[in-house]
Amino acid sequence: MRIVLQKVSEASVTVGSAVVSQIKHGYMLLVGIGTDDKLEDIDKLSKKILTFRGFDDDAGYGWKRNISEVDGEILCVSQFTLMARTSKGTKPDFHLAQRGELANELYGQFMDKLKAGLGDDKVQNGVFGAMMSCKLTNEGPVTIIFDSKA
Amino acid sequence: MRIVLQKVSEASVTVGSAVVSQIKHGYMLLVGIGTDDKLEDIDKLSKKILTFRGFDDDAGYGWKRNISEVDGEILCVSQFTLMARTSKGTKPDFHLAQRGELANELYGQFMDKLKAGLGDDKVQNGVFGAMMSCKLTNEGPVTIIFDSKA
Repeated sequence: MRIVLQKVSEASVTVGSAVVSQIKHGYMLLVGIGTDDKLEDIDKLSKKILTFRGFDDDAGYGWKRNISEVDGEILCVSQFTLMARTSKGTKPDFHLAQRGELANELYGQFMDKLKAGLGDDKVQNGVFGAMMSCKLTNEGPVTIIFDSKA
Repeated sequence: MRIVLQKVSEASVTVGSAVVSQIKHGYMLLVGIGTDDKLEDIDKLSKKILTFRGFDDDAGYGWKRNISEVDGEILCVSQFTLMARTSKGTKPDFHLAQRGELANELYGQFMDKLKAGLGDDKVQNGVFGAMMSCKLTNEGPVTIIFDSKA
């Protein structure tokens, strides 16, 4: 399982012409589920995201506070392309990306764990499998890669 | 060296209140340089980005055309946080991230290779080391992680 976390001041997902979800300050998460991922991968990375100290303290010292300590929100979007292998050739190889119902099930469990930790109203979702336009403002920028196998 | 590529319909970098760079359709690249990276890593990933078939063909089949074949642009931003190790604890460990002049030099060489391949006017940059607001619209979304050590 891989996650690209971007620290945002705002982020939204639009499908067609409808804004389906939006947050103010917090994390935009792009989430890739792999063919060999299980509940323990979901467990590991949901804990990691909720406890990750991605925010400064009041004195401006970095990496001090986590998402709930700054009353932040999370916008989560499923992104199988994160599991691409790119070392050979010019086309991405997606054999390690879990797809369809299996991916959606694990992704749903990941969302449930984030909501359990942060509160339902603080965790937004894209539309699994839809063509989405993800608008965001990455402040810093701050972008962190999490990998459950690392 | 790590790159997070996001396929965008627009992207810009603002420092303070000034928009310092912006592109329309193409790639937003967040680029992390590691302490053990050399020119060969720069060479490898610049070739990979320029030849990567991230775009559909006219019939809508995916992964067929590269950035120059679709007359796309690249907005590149230095992002040392991509080299963070996150497996232990709740704070990112940046010991593997190259910093300062050494990072800036390799990053500059990476930019030069992209420009040589795509044309100077098609490759934009952030401001190395500055606090930047990176606005983007990731279409799909499509996000790919490239790692020169993979």
